[in-house]
Amino acid sequence: MKLLIAVVQDKDSNRLIQALGDSHFKTTKLASTGGFLKEGNTTLMIGCEDHEVDKALDLIRDNCSQREQMVAPISPMGGNADSYIPKPVKVEVGGATVFVLPIESFFQF
Amino acid sequence: MKLLIAVVQDKDSNRLIQALGDSHFKTTKLASTGGFLKEGNTTLMIGCEDHEVDKALDLIRDNCSQREQMVAPISPMGGNADSYIPKPVKVEVGGATVFVLPIESFFQF
Amino acid sequence: MKLLIAVVQDKDSNRLIQALGDSHFKTTKLASTGGFLKEGNTTLMIGCEDHEVDKALDLIRDNCSQREQMVAPISPMGGNADSYIPKPVKVEVGGATVFVLPIESFFQF
Ligand code: NI
Ligand code: NI
Ligand code: NI
Repeated sequence: MKLLIAVVQDKDSNRLIQALGDSHFKTTKLASTGGFLKEGNTTLMIGCEDHEVDKALDLIRDNCSQREQMVAPISPMGGNADSYIPKPVKVEVGGATVFVLPIESFFQF
Repeated sequence: MKLLIAVVQDKDSNRLIQALGDSHFKTTKLASTGGFLKEGNTTLMIGCEDHEVDKALDLIRDNCSQREQMVAPISPMGGNADSYIPKPVKVEVGGATVFVLPIESFFQF
Repeated sequence: MKLLIAVVQDKDSNRLIQALGDSHFKTTKLASTGGFLKEGNTTLMIGCEDHEVDKALDLIRDNCSQREQMVAPISPMGGNADSYIPKPVKVEVGGATVFVLPIESFFQF
């Protein structure tokens, strides 16, 4: 058994939890308070057998990888709207940090 | 030293924390947000010496094991109250998942 | 790689997170709900390379050690204010508990 601790973006967490559940992984979601370093992050604890670690990592990679997203900027208020052509901008979203921890023993009561 | 990470039901957590404290275990309670997989769960971190792991596991088992509980169902609103005899139903409550993690070192400042 | 789990007082946590960030440690702040055992505590997860564990421990010690603080007591309401000389009292503040956990593997996506 291993314990995976995954820190992912809030916006990706529900999709990941759904995917993990579909594959019968047991997931516990901890409240991250953000803080200024990790604003908007969620911490998941995933217990899994050794031979399922790669599957779990695949699901995290598939659902949470850092990627670029085009975002339409807000039109400036009071600007010269006629001549203003808003250009979508690229932003980085997503990203996951995963720690795989050895478990000495595991119990369910 | 070991670190026990225990995921238990909210309704069992105060009784368990009390029992752990009475036995001088140091317990930190993390906020679990529930999520749809683990609605109403609490995560506890319990640091303990190797020879006390069994004692801690006993306390978790005693206070949090999955068990059946009889629950009186709510009378249906607007039903024929005279002829309605509510039957208590069995529901599963409690349950605990515990990971025992090895600790490389431990510090108190 | 190691995973440090540090439980510190809320009042020390922002200063510590700032110090860890200045030294390029990656820190995730978990919400502790307090509970009656650990009222006002914050749990931090800090991932770091083996050779940086001592540095991280130094930062935790420097920013969170248990220490005495002089606190001016509140004047008693309706007391004889003229003859009352409030004496500052010593209280214990701070303190940190740190678990250093081995990591089997570590991923960033
Ligand atoms: Ni299997
Ligand atoms: Ni002992
Ligand atoms: Ni280095």
